[in-house]
Amino acid sequence: MSIVLDAMGSDERPAPELQAAVDAARLYKEEIILVGDEAVLKPRLALLNPDGLPISIVHAPEAVDMSDHIEDVRKKKDNTMRVGMDWVKAGKGSCFVTAGNTGMAMYYAVKTFRNIPGVIRPALTSLFPVKGGHCIVCDIGANAECKPEYLLQFAVMGSIYAEKILNIKNPRVGLLSNGEEAGKGNELVKGTYPLLLASGLNFVGNVEGKEVFNGEADVVVTDGFTGNIMLKSTEAVANLIMETLKVSLKGSFRTKIGALLAKPAFDGVKKLIDPSEIGAAPLLGVDGLVFIGHGRSDAKAMTNALRIAHQANEIHLIDALREAVQTRLADITRTVPA
Amino acid sequence: MSIVLDAMGSDERPAPELQAAVDAARLYKEEIILVGDEAVLKPRLALLNPDGLPISIVHAPEAVDMSDHIEDVRKKKDNTMRVGMDWVKAGKGSCFVTAGNTGMAMYYAVKTFRNIPGVIRPALTSLFPVKGGHCIVCDIGANAECKPEYLLQFAVMGSIYAEKILNIKNPRVGLLSNGEEAGKGNELVKGTYPLLLASGLNFVGNVEGKEVFNGEADVVVTDGFTGNIMLKSTEAVANLIMETLKVSLKGSFRTKIGALLAKPAFDGVKKLIDPSEIGAAPLLGVDGLVFIGHGRSDAKAMTNALRIAHQANEIHLIDALREAVQTRLADITRTVPA
Repeated sequence: MSIVLDAMGSDERPAPELQAAVDAARLYKEEIILVGDEAVLKPRLALLNPDGLPISIVHAPEAVDMSDHIEDVRKKKDNTMRVGMDWVKAGKGSCFVTAGNTGMAMYYAVKTFRNIPGVIRPALTSLFPVKGGHCIVCDIGANAECKPEYLLQFAVMGSIYAEKILNIKNPRVGLLSNGEEAGKGNELVKGTYPLLLASGLNFVGNVEGKEVFNGEADVVVTDGFTGNIMLKSTEAVANLIMETLKVSLKGSFRTKIGALLAKPAFDGVKKLIDPSEIGAAPLLGVDGLVFIGHGRSDAKAMTNALRIAHQANEIHLIDALREAVQTRLADITRTVPA
Repeated sequence: MSIVLDAMGSDERPAPELQAAVDAARLYKEEIILVGDEAVLKPRLALLNPDGLPISIVHAPEAVDMSDHIEDVRKKKDNTMRVGMDWVKAGKGSCFVTAGNTGMAMYYAVKTFRNIPGVIRPALTSLFPVKGGHCIVCDIGANAECKPEYLLQFAVMGSIYAEKILNIKNPRVGLLSNGEEAGKGNELVKGTYPLLLASGLNFVGNVEGKEVFNGEADVVVTDGFTGNIMLKSTEAVANLIMETLKVSLKGSFRTKIGALLAKPAFDGVKKLIDPSEIGAAPLLGVDGLVFIGHGRSDAKAMTNALRIAHQANEIHLIDALREAVQTRLADITRTVPA
């Protein structure tokens, strides 16, 4: 087994990717296949003392930019995403990791691997930091419009992920809504509620922001539009608070000294909202393992992403997902009222 | 002109309301009509030295609880919301302020005042704290399902409010979406974009959480489901951060001392996310002025709510809204592609 890593994904590419490849190869003793321009990567990798480590380079001269759309990447046939995923598809790697353009990663993932048989739509996921841990939110942007059946499938796949990768037994599934009570919500929520209730999953009902960040669900399902709004707006408010605090702490000599003394406490909060702790989240539902990290990923974030990919390889996540979709979804379809 | 105040709205009712009535009557020299059980309110008010202040009490023996639904309030005919809004409707007060059950306030507002002629759906609004000020978000929960025309009307009414009450000339209108570029979004956003573009409003395009909290729009329009998720999840993440910080600061002697010294800086952040700074937000589109504050309102929050109501009275907000809906919406209807 080996992990195929897009060397040209992150904003600071390829530095975080190269460092992470070296660190992860050492830590997890798993082969890391870097995809990118060999002429660029080879000398830079050599500076990081990779001797004896299972790291190889697959040549892909072009890189996908963060602003690229489908029409742009079509002109870059030999880009790292396409080449890297083809490598996995051909069986020469077991999963693909990138911190690049999410939309394009999703585009190539669906194109390369197609959906797991039985999956209607794949979900983009994100791990949210919540009280006492993390929860996985599906979907955070793959499908702006959803149907209840999609959300049911997200719940099944998200539960498998929470169980296998986050090590949560019988993960609690929450349905994001504008009110906790059954019957609250938009048409999508109202249509999804009975499906989840009848699903056999550990459904805890509707959840609002309060319950999500209190850690009252391990898997939160929603449409990609709402999930994306929740992701972006909570990131933004967290940044606003930290920025305001930073400016306020510089306000006087007294607060500056206070800030110095209180630094360890601030580090705790920074860690809470730091995307590098999270690493990457999977695109659930495509028939291949694709993990997408934040564009702002540093080497630590990329190493964490590779740790998750390594875990996914170890426990054969893709097989577990395939099986869950085939068995559990078939069961659900039988029990769910038409 | 006078403000009708629900004395039985907030979680700590009626203490914050009574104190705020005294403070606001003194500050704004406007009559405050408290609505609640006279036998309860009269002696408590007397303790606050209201002599000479223009404060009166209208008797309403029943109170709406936070958990009440329509079937519950129907059994409480003489509740403060119903009685208070009837008082305004009868011309004996110019606007109604409550920190009570939002859903029930909305129910009575629509029932009592109906919509401003031409308004399809009223919007529940909220002032969000953003970099450098506030923005008004419409809708945050009145309409879980919306059509593009509703959002267009929210934008017109929100612009009037931002102009007249927040004193922003030519307020910038943003359309909440999962991507900044035109063409991004769900069907609702895609349908609303051209309407806003042709509206003559100061439309700045799609906005994501980042732009919202960066203060790049003064009015943000969205459906009530998404707006509610944004409101609740950003409140929740702000609470989680402040709580984590509080716990971390108590972690060691060093950080405790640091926290003491840095206290003025924390107060700045607390002020940023403190709902009491915001007071209350209007229900836009009903043909009467109704302001709804946070259930957690303290006396300061209620006084701020009464300040906003006072301002709205001063500038005849309801007339401005009626006129805007009649003239600007008529103009828009003529210019918008069918």
